Amino acid sequence: MTQELILGIDFGGTKVALGLSDRAGNLLATSRISTDAECGADQVVTRALAAARALLAEDGAGASPVAVGVVSPGIVLPDRILLAPNVPGWEKLHLHDLVAAEFPGVPIATGTDAKAAALAEWKWGALAGTDPAMFLSLGTGIAAAVLVGGRVLPGANGAAGEIGYNLLAPQDTEGFTSGAAPLEEAVGGRGLGGRASEMLGRPVTAGELFRLARDNAQAKELVTSALDELSMHVANLAIAIDPQRIAVGGGLVRSADVILPALRERLACAVPFPPELVSAKFDQDAALRGAIALAQGT
Amino acid sequence: MTQELILGIDFGGTKVALGLSDRAGNLLATSRISTDAECGADQVVTRALAAARALLAEDGAGASPVAVGVVSPGIVLPDRILLAPNVPGWEKLHLHDLVAAEFPGVPIATGTDAKAAALAEWKWGALAGTDPAMFLSLGTGIAAAVLVGGRVLPGANGAAGEIGYNLLAPQDTEGFTSGAAPLEEAVGGRGLGGRASEMLGRPVTAGELFRLARDNAQAKELVTSALDELSMHVANLAIAIDPQRIAVGGGLVRSADVILPALRERLACAVPFPPELVSAKFDQDAALRGAIALAQGT
Repeated sequence: MTQELILGIDFGGTKVALGLSDRAGNLLATSRISTDAECGADQVVTRALAAARALLAEDGAGASPVAVGVVSPGIVLPDRILLAPNVPGWEKLHLHDLVAAEFPGVPIATGTDAKAAALAEWKWGALAGTDPAMFLSLGTGIAAAVLVGGRVLPGANGAAGEIGYNLLAPQDTEGFTSGAAPLEEAVGGRGLGGRASEMLGRPVTAGELFRLARDNAQAKELVTSALDELSMHVANLAIAIDPQRIAVGGGLVRSADVILPALRERLACAVPFPPELVSAKFDQDAALRGAIALAQGT
Repeated sequence: MTQELILGIDFGGTKVALGLSDRAGNLLATSRISTDAECGADQVVTRALAAARALLAEDGAGASPVAVGVVSPGIVLPDRILLAPNVPGWEKLHLHDLVAAEFPGVPIATGTDAKAAALAEWKWGALAGTDPAMFLSLGTGIAAAVLVGGRVLPGANGAAGEIGYNLLAPQDTEGFTSGAAPLEEAVGGRGLGGRASEMLGRPVTAGELFRLARDNAQAKELVTSALDELSMHVANLAIAIDPQRIAVGGGLVRSADVILPALRERLACAVPFPPELVSAKFDQDAALRGAIALAQGT
């Protein structure tokens, strides 16, 4: 008898991660392709589905999956994806239909990557058994997700936790409506890397900036100011939610040795009941595992 | 047959409101006494219970209540009340036991005033039928409450929504642990009144400040700066929660003509899906009605 397999796909701004799991969510095989976002949205989906077929052929004995979970930045609607400015062309994508055409009759769940990652951390990772729980995704984009009783709070429009749009100052009126994402531009990977590159006169990623900050005074100043900003927002969100634990994931968490102590210190001075703050369990595949967690619910 | 009555008591920093309702929560009679907080916490409770007996004698034919709901600022624990700095002596009060001694055998519910008010607005007021819903209490204290599926999110320690402790600036480290409540000091009624009094050289309440701001440039500047600060925090909270509707209550809402447009404008420019923003239905008795709503659940 062939094993029942769940297929997960995590569309990101730079790469697409694919995975096969058993019914219980144990990852059996994974692969990844580059997004090549600048070539358009449809080609990413086409290549990702081909990669999914290849993965099923190689590691799934050519079986069809029993369920598919697909996650992406933004709010995945049937005929478009909202709030995903980091993936050009993404807004008009019929993601669910394209995947359904490849796997007819198979139940398909779609969702927002950070919220799915939060669910995976709650089911299998660093947030297990906590209530309320908070997940913080620090990468190219900045987002949060709150779980109450193990359920991610979606908000009225699926947009809860999109804290990349947070305003930074009382007089700040350049927000979402102006096409801005103030907090994400200030502390997200792309914004930080851009400012670091400008400052140092060569291309520097956010990860490299954090490493440079150990010795380079300019880099340190940039990192300190970004962490000051971020930690104020995280503290204020923790005051509002009073979470038992916060798990931090996303690409920037590779610099957890610098980021986590800064966040922890601010939580300790500002939040009446400071929550535990930990690294997410799943390094770079929390959203992929989240896609599988969503598929389990179909 | 005597009607079954619910007794609600709302302990505030300046007054205690009492009310009798029927089982459905319809208010039948109310009274109020001053808190005289400076005379200590126990005397307030003693006088409030005497006032409750008087209310039951006059308007309840001397009956005992079938349930009692009691709300207060802060987190009401069996042997103390946390996070209620505006009522001196409140922290060591055994509020539940004192009320239970007066009404032996009667089920007693206790809770935080702003959260109870949010529940009343959701059950009978401006938040009915909305999900998620957000209540904002602007008075001496500043607090918020979020309802998901009609249930107020308490947080891990009952401290969710205590946004009076929010930090104001990225470098801000003078928060809860330093005894500060930065946002409440900046935009709460007491903080605003204090700064207005200083500026104008005579005692001025926050309500008067808002009225003066129509003609007086200094007062207008103070109000504008407070509303800028407040509206940034409300916008960022709305980004995190993605509520369908926000209702604003508390004493400062008497100046709703100035406060609501400022908040609405900021929500419109910052929040991806700007929620409706409305005045709370219950002017000054939302927390009292909330106490009754809590008692209904006993």
